[in-house]
Amino acid sequence: MNTPQLDQALGDPFGHSLSHPFDLRLDALLAAYRDGRIEPRGLIGALRTRALALNAEYRLFIHVLDEAELEPYLAALEHQSPADLPLFGIPFAIKDNIDLAGIPTTAACPAFAYTPARSATVIERLVTLGAIPIGKANLDQFATGLNGTRSPYGACRNALLPDYPAGGSSAGSALAVALGVASFALGTDTAGSGRVPAAFNNLVGTKPSRGLLSTAGVVPACRTLDCVTFFTATASEASRLLGLCAGLDALDPYSRHNPSWNHVTAFGTPLPFRFGVPRPADLEFFGCTEGPALFASAIERLRAIGGEAVEIDFTPFLEAARLLYEGPWVAERYSVVGPLMERTPDAVLPVIRAVLAKAPGATAVQTFEAQYRLQAYKARCDALLAELDCVLTPTIGRPVTLAELAAEPVLRNSDLGHYTNFMNLLDYAAVAVPSAVMKSALPWGVTLFGRAFTDQYLLSLADAFQRIQAELPLTGGHAFDTPRPVGRAQHDRLAIVVCGAHLQGLALNHQLTTRGARLLERTVSSPHYRLYALAGGPPLRPGMVRVAEDGCAIEVEVWELPAAEFGSFLAGIPSPLGLGKVELADGRWEIGFICEPSGIAGATEISHFGGWRGYLASR
Amino acid sequence: MNTPQLDQALGDPFGHSLSHPFDLRLDALLAAYRDGRIEPRGLIGALRTRALALNAEYRLFIHVLDEAELEPYLAALEHQSPADLPLFGIPFAIKDNIDLAGIPTTAACPAFAYTPARSATVIERLVTLGAIPIGKANLDQFATGLNGTRSPYGACRNALLPDYPAGGSSAGSALAVALGVASFALGTDTAGSGRVPAAFNNLVGTKPSRGLLSTAGVVPACRTLDCVTFFTATASEASRLLGLCAGLDALDPYSRHNPSWNHVTAFGTPLPFRFGVPRPADLEFFGCTEGPALFASAIERLRAIGGEAVEIDFTPFLEAARLLYEGPWVAERYSVVGPLMERTPDAVLPVIRAVLAKAPGATAVQTFEAQYRLQAYKARCDALLAELDCVLTPTIGRPVTLAELAAEPVLRNSDLGHYTNFMNLLDYAAVAVPSAVMKSALPWGVTLFGRAFTDQYLLSLADAFQRIQAELPLTGGHAFDTPRPVGRAQHDRLAIVVCGAHLQGLALNHQLTTRGARLLERTVSSPHYRLYALAGGPPLRPGMVRVAEDGCAIEVEVWELPAAEFGSFLAGIPSPLGLGKVELADGRWEIGFICEPSGIAGATEISHFGGWRGYLASR
Repeated sequence: MNTPQLDQALGDPFGHSLSHPFDLRLDALLAAYRDGRIEPRGLIGALRTRALALNAEYRLFIHVLDEAELEPYLAALEHQSPADLPLFGIPFAIKDNIDLAGIPTTAACPAFAYTPARSATVIERLVTLGAIPIGKANLDQFATGLNGTRSPYGACRNALLPDYPAGGSSAGSALAVALGVASFALGTDTAGSGRVPAAFNNLVGTKPSRGLLSTAGVVPACRTLDCVTFFTATASEASRLLGLCAGLDALDPYSRHNPSWNHVTAFGTPLPFRFGVPRPADLEFFGCTEGPALFASAIERLRAIGGEAVEIDFTPFLEAARLLYEGPWVAERYSVVGPLMERTPDAVLPVIRAVLAKAPGATAVQTFEAQYRLQAYKARCDALLAELDCVLTPTIGRPVTLAELAAEPVLRNSDLGHYTNFMNLLDYAAVAVPSAVMKSALPWGVTLFGRAFTDQYLLSLADAFQRIQAELPLTGGHAFDTPRPVGRAQHDRLAIVVCGAHLQGLALNHQLTTRGARLLERTVSSPHYRLYALAGGPPLRPGMVRVAEDGCAIEVEVWELPAAEFGSFLAGIPSPLGLGKVELADGRWEIGFICEPSGIAGATEISHFGGWRGYLASR
Repeated sequence: MNTPQLDQALGDPFGHSLSHPFDLRLDALLAAYRDGRIEPRGLIGALRTRALALNAEYRLFIHVLDEAELEPYLAALEHQSPADLPLFGIPFAIKDNIDLAGIPTTAACPAFAYTPARSATVIERLVTLGAIPIGKANLDQFATGLNGTRSPYGACRNALLPDYPAGGSSAGSALAVALGVASFALGTDTAGSGRVPAAFNNLVGTKPSRGLLSTAGVVPACRTLDCVTFFTATASEASRLLGLCAGLDALDPYSRHNPSWNHVTAFGTPLPFRFGVPRPADLEFFGCTEGPALFASAIERLRAIGGEAVEIDFTPFLEAARLLYEGPWVAERYSVVGPLMERTPDAVLPVIRAVLAKAPGATAVQTFEAQYRLQAYKARCDALLAELDCVLTPTIGRPVTLAELAAEPVLRNSDLGHYTNFMNLLDYAAVAVPSAVMKSALPWGVTLFGRAFTDQYLLSLADAFQRIQAELPLTGGHAFDTPRPVGRAQHDRLAIVVCGAHLQGLALNHQLTTRGARLLERTVSSPHYRLYALAGGPPLRPGMVRVAEDGCAIEVEVWELPAAEFGSFLAGIPSPLGLGKVELADGRWEIGFICEPSGIAGATEISHFGGWRGYLASR
């Protein structure tokens, strides 16, 4: 199948100089497979041809799988279908610091290359689900860089504008998606390498919480910080991939359990939320005059999807960021690269050697002292985040050009890390999402970040952020036509509706406040309830009971409680009460207090007071 | 008030050579205060006299507060009573690496001493609650040791037998309680310093989870590992103190939130539980011939309170332990002591200098590599612990004598850390509790340890362990006469009773298993329920409803689910179902599925099938 036929089959033309990554979106491809409009060998063959054609200019791949190397993956799809495999025939690129069995892993350093017998755990998972690896993508050597030029396999240029870099270190991965060669790509992120290339190339770059995606089979950069990442056109695809791949891996001691509130992959309209933004004095655009207006537009867009902007002191985040390269964490990189550097210095690029030069002399005492400083920053940053649902920043302060990088390779590269370097040090989740197009026609993006294990929640916000745009930038007129998912991504905090002794100021409210709960709103239930004063106590307690007829609206409060605190809260709720679902006046159903039928016996009907406070006042 | 009158007032004679720490138990003192049998100035004065008298032989205090220094604390009690202050007039000792305002902190190093303006956060809290500091207790210099002889203020001798050390590094703290000078004492624990002295002196030594007790105002040893600890006669006192003092402290970045399941301080009979014991091949008694039988007795006692012993591979714990002194963590100690050591070597004891000698040369690369190894051990140990409620070990393999320590100060000291060194590295909670008396008349103890934030649970087991002994060892015939508390300490996992689609093998059971739940038992409810097949679905679901009459017993399963997973589990339970309390056949009430009255409308009565499985089989 040649490219025009492929285009026709997919229903969208590939442009020449401008890619349409949206043509390879998961749902578009899976639908095309189901309808029989395409089949894997044909699509993969066409993409392979495209990849080889683009490589001379963009240098996105270190290795494109040849037909023999592809064969086992394609053969595995025979007698299967998208009904069997959620990623049936989906092409993906792999940053070349992640192992693919039988194919060399170079980390962009020929002398370092080895051929793994086993694929990285995440790759094995994706392949099991039907995905097809297209190639090993180019990167800044040893993932040490944020710009994509630090590779003996050639410097990656931007997908859209030749004067700009692709960003790094996951340069080739981003280009594979941006240039319409893969549906998604795996990257890694220690300092920002999964987010900066997304911003440069109009993609969503998802940096999951540390430990969610196994790093078994990944060449370490800073092993205590590294994350495997996804590049996709849309947040909803990233959400699906994360849901399919996250999980504890016995082969990776840094692997962490994904709490179940972070498992949801289908979401609708976000509830009202609070997002932090750096105070104006803390914003840095490195002289980019468009930056402030672009960021202000992003803030407005988040407001439009229900967000309330809260200015925060951003300095502890920025101070933590400085530790990544000023502090001893370079010793982690050195533990991987050092032996080669010492044996054969010329095997490692001079710029990488310069970054790692002070690592051997760094001491244990300095390491611990830096970790104390980091912990102090983390305590301050965590306290700021505790009051928010997420934080919004630019992904990059100012996109540098290839010429600027050539003139000042270290300084301009480190500018790119301004808003990214702290993220893994502080153990947060982050999603980079396209936001606008600059006057130069370069994409410009923002990052949403939050507490660890709020990944799906952040992706739900990024999804809404993309959907509210009538037309996504740089997509040749594609509308966001994927069906709106249903359900709601869960936060690490859940709403709980209370109607009695747990109301603010009343006898049991401390059971909420000592668990870190905060009041969201005072409202009423839908008009389908009756309220009873239960027998027993103190403390006196009501039971709120749903009725089919003759119901009324009962005064309630909606609090937000950390999901992790519900178990012990439940343990303290005596029969006949419990927690179920309560309908609010606006039609929402939230977790709230319910009452067993046995509790109504001997209880006093008090619905006419309108709520528990009214009843107490009457006594 | 002189000592005989004090004795008479308390109702128990102080022995001469043998202390009775049980005379100063919290409840005994508080009752004596409430009854007016004693008053603070008199008691504290008598204890001060006793402390000074004992100090020549036991060297337990570096500084005993004089009358002027005590005055502000005693004056604060005027016009207060035990009804106002939960620790009214309770005397406590403070390890001299913890700050008490206006009194020098020496860390057992005169050249290091400074006088803090502010008390450590935990001390401030205790004083606010009415407790009275008696003195600054002796310790191994800079908390570097497990034996209590490494102090220029004199070597501490054992409270009971002159040939034995007090253990360390919190030697004086343990002696203050064991010798009847304080109700409780604060220690610290990095390598075992809160547990080894407890074992040597017949005390409960509570090493809380890292971060539960603020270390603000504590001289650091290994700042990433240090814990403030309690020495008490009983586990129930430790539980109360922990409940009063645990909490996030903005002044300590290593402070951690205490999850609410770990807040309970009143407990009754433990539920059946599984405790790990090292495989026989992994047990080490360093030639102590009594050891195996003593440990076997402790195992039997845990079985008698409901425990099931499970042999585990203990090697990853022991391998992690070796990292503490073979690895770079000594660099943490060096960051505190190093400057003084370099300026004035003789200011630091030679044995301490020897321990820290290799710290300056340790590199950052070595530090990170050791942290990777630790993480690998932690992953293995966590996996072992995940299947257990706690683990039981001896606290000390073999109690060394003073003579043996003098002959081999480093080797014999490190023997003492065999079962303790891994605990803070692996981030576990631990309680050392007396278990027996050796032929020599020396106390012998065990340690219960578990996952972080299971402190109150471990204390509930230690409490039951103490209560099951008709008479506690070495207490002059004291029975355990404190009233048995009610309620049950919470684990980090909670029981949940299911009766329908969540039963093993049925449609929604995966919602439990993906959250790490495990099946505890199959049983029936109490005979006070009826079962209905609810309208709606799939999946089909029942509602179990408590009735006042004509009830029956319904088949149920009791699962154990991590407390942190209940929130998201609840979020997925639709109306009319919820979670409340269900009564089991044996009379226990556990969290379980309940149903709102509105759900019974249109439902089919199916109680006669005995349970959901029976109903499904009939369709």
